[in-house]
Amino acid sequence: MDVTFLGTGAGVPAKNRNVSAIALTLPEYKGDTWLFDCGEATQHQILYTSLKLSKISNIFITHLHGDHIFGLPGVLGSRSFQGSEDPLNIYGPPGIKAFIEAALCTSSTYLKYPMTIFELNEDGHIFEDEHFQVVAGKLDHGVACFGFRVIEKDQPGELLVKKLKADGVQPGPVYRKIKENPYVTLPGGRRLTSDHYLGPKKAGRKVTILGDTRTCQAAFDLAKDADLLIHEATFSREMGDKAKAYGHSTSVQAAETAKAAEAAALILTHISSRYQGDDDMLLDEAKAVFPNSFLARDLWTYQLNRQPR
Amino acid sequence: MDVTFLGTGAGVPAKNRNVSAIALTLPEYKGDTWLFDCGEATQHQILYTSLKLSKISNIFITHLHGDHIFGLPGVLGSRSFQGSEDPLNIYGPPGIKAFIEAALCTSSTYLKYPMTIFELNEDGHIFEDEHFQVVAGKLDHGVACFGFRVIEKDQPGELLVKKLKADGVQPGPVYRKIKENPYVTLPGGRRLTSDHYLGPKKAGRKVTILGDTRTCQAAFDLAKDADLLIHEATFSREMGDKAKAYGHSTSVQAAETAKAAEAAALILTHISSRYQGDDDMLLDEAKAVFPNSFLARDLWTYQLNRQPR
Repeated sequence: MDVTFLGTGAGVPAKNRNVSAIALTLPEYKGDTWLFDCGEATQHQILYTSLKLSKISNIFITHLHGDHIFGLPGVLGSRSFQGSEDPLNIYGPPGIKAFIEAALCTSSTYLKYPMTIFELNEDGHIFEDEHFQVVAGKLDHGVACFGFRVIEKDQPGELLVKKLKADGVQPGPVYRKIKENPYVTLPGGRRLTSDHYLGPKKAGRKVTILGDTRTCQAAFDLAKDADLLIHEATFSREMGDKAKAYGHSTSVQAAETAKAAEAAALILTHISSRYQGDDDMLLDEAKAVFPNSFLARDLWTYQLNRQPR
Repeated sequence: MDVTFLGTGAGVPAKNRNVSAIALTLPEYKGDTWLFDCGEATQHQILYTSLKLSKISNIFITHLHGDHIFGLPGVLGSRSFQGSEDPLNIYGPPGIKAFIEAALCTSSTYLKYPMTIFELNEDGHIFEDEHFQVVAGKLDHGVACFGFRVIEKDQPGELLVKKLKADGVQPGPVYRKIKENPYVTLPGGRRLTSDHYLGPKKAGRKVTILGDTRTCQAAFDLAKDADLLIHEATFSREMGDKAKAYGHSTSVQAAETAKAAEAAALILTHISSRYQGDDDMLLDEAKAVFPNSFLARDLWTYQLNRQPR
C-alpha cells in the first residue's frame, strides 16, 4: 500500500503545497488506486507521478469545501478523455452529486465509463469488497465532513511447503485448495486440516484518513489502532484558538489523537500556507507528543508495509 | 498592454501546456487585468507571474467546455480569500451563471466582493468604459462559443510644448485644458484651437481573442485590422479533417484568417498535446502564410505596443 500526497496545503494553492488530495495505491491488488479528496489541479499533480487516472476506481470526498473538490470535474473528464471505460465510484457528503452533475452538464462532458455517486448521510460501513472495508465517521468541521478508516482484511498465512512435503503432500493444485479451504480431502480419502499447513495469518492494515476537523471522539474512534493516521494540522500549537474557531486542528492536537488512539504512525497534512520554510516546527511539535510523526509534502509517497503484531 | 498566456494547451493539461487562460493586463490603466477563459489551475499558473487576483476586474469566457472554465471556482474563491472587495464582472455563454452558482453554493464559498455575471446571447457590444469597447461575435465550434475584439479608444496626441511656449503659452493648468478641450480661452481673452498644439492622435490598439473555432466569417470580422489576433491552432496543416470534425482550426487556417483580415500579428494557442517537442512545426506552417506569427507558450508575455499607422 502506497500513500501519495498530491496536495498538502490548506484553503488556497501555494507553489510548494497544492490543495488537498491523497492517493492510496494498492500494488498488491492490481495497482487499484483510491483518491481521497480532489482539490483543484489534482490531475496536474498526477502528471508528476506514476499514477494513472484509469486506475482510480474509488474517490472518497471528506467534505465539500472548494479546496477539496474543485479538481473533481477535471479528473472525471480527463479520465474519460484518456479512454477509460472502467467503473468509478464516488463517495461524499450530500451535495456532491449536484455539483458533479452541474459541472459535467455545463461543460458538455460525456463520460465513457459508468460513474456511481454515493451520498453519505450516516456514520458506518460505506464500502466492502474481497479485500477491504471502509468505515466513515462524521468529524467536527462546521460543514458535513467525514473521516475514513480503510481496513484491509486479514490475509491467510504462508503455505508451509516443507511440512506438507514431509507429510507426503506433493506440490500441485491441492496447495491452492489448502490456502482457500479450512479442510481438504486428498485423492484416496485422507483429510487435511488446512490450518496445520499455514503460517500465522497476515494481519490486514488499517489506514485512517481524516478530513478537516477539530479534535473529536469520531477522529479517535476512526484512528484506533491504525497502522497509519493521516490527520490535518492546519495550525501550529500556539494557534489553538484560531484552529478551534475555524474548525481545524493544531499539530499537537493531531499528535494527541494519534497517541490516545495508539496509532502506529502519524502523517500531518493540510498545512496552512502561512508556514513557508518553517513548517518543520509543526513536525517538531507533533513529535514531542507522538514520536513516529511525519510531515507530508506534495508528491511524497509513504509506503505502508505490514507491521508485525 | 501585456498579454500573458497562462494556459496554451487543448482539452487536457500537460506538463508544458496548461488548459486555456489568457490575461490581458493594462499597465496604462492602473494595472487592471482582464482574464479570457479560465481552465483548471489558472490560479496556480498566476502564482508564477506578477499578476494579482485582486486586479482582475473582468473575466470573459469564450465557451463552456471544461478546459476553459474549470478554474473559475478556484479563481473566484481565492480572490475573495485574499481579501479583494473590488467588483468583478463575468461575461460568458448562457449556463455560466448556473455553473458558478452551483460551485460556490456547494462549497459554501461566500464572496467578499460584488460579482455580476452577464450571459451573452447575441453578437455585438458587450462592454464599454472610458478607455475600451469589447465586441463579441459567435464562432463555429458546436457549442455556443464567442470571440472577443477588445478596442482601445484613440488617445489624444502629445502636447506640443515647444510650440506653446513659442506662442507665449507658459506651462500650468492650461496645458491640461488644452489636452481635454477642443478650444481654450486664456486669461485676457485669447482663444486657442487645441488641435494646433497637439501631435497626431494615438490610435487605440485592437486585440482579438478567439475561442475554439473552425474558420468562419465571424473570426474574420473580429480580427479585421487587429493589432494582434490570438487564434487557436489545435492541429497542424495535415489534420484539417480532424480539425473540421471537432470544430477546431489548423495552424494554416489561423494564418489565413490573420492574412485575410490584415491583422498586424498572430499568436497561435490552444495547441493539442500530441505536439510535444515538435510544436514549432505549427509555427513554421503559419509563418509560410502569415510571416508575423508567434507560437504561445505557458507563462509567456507578449507586450503590445502602439503601432505606427
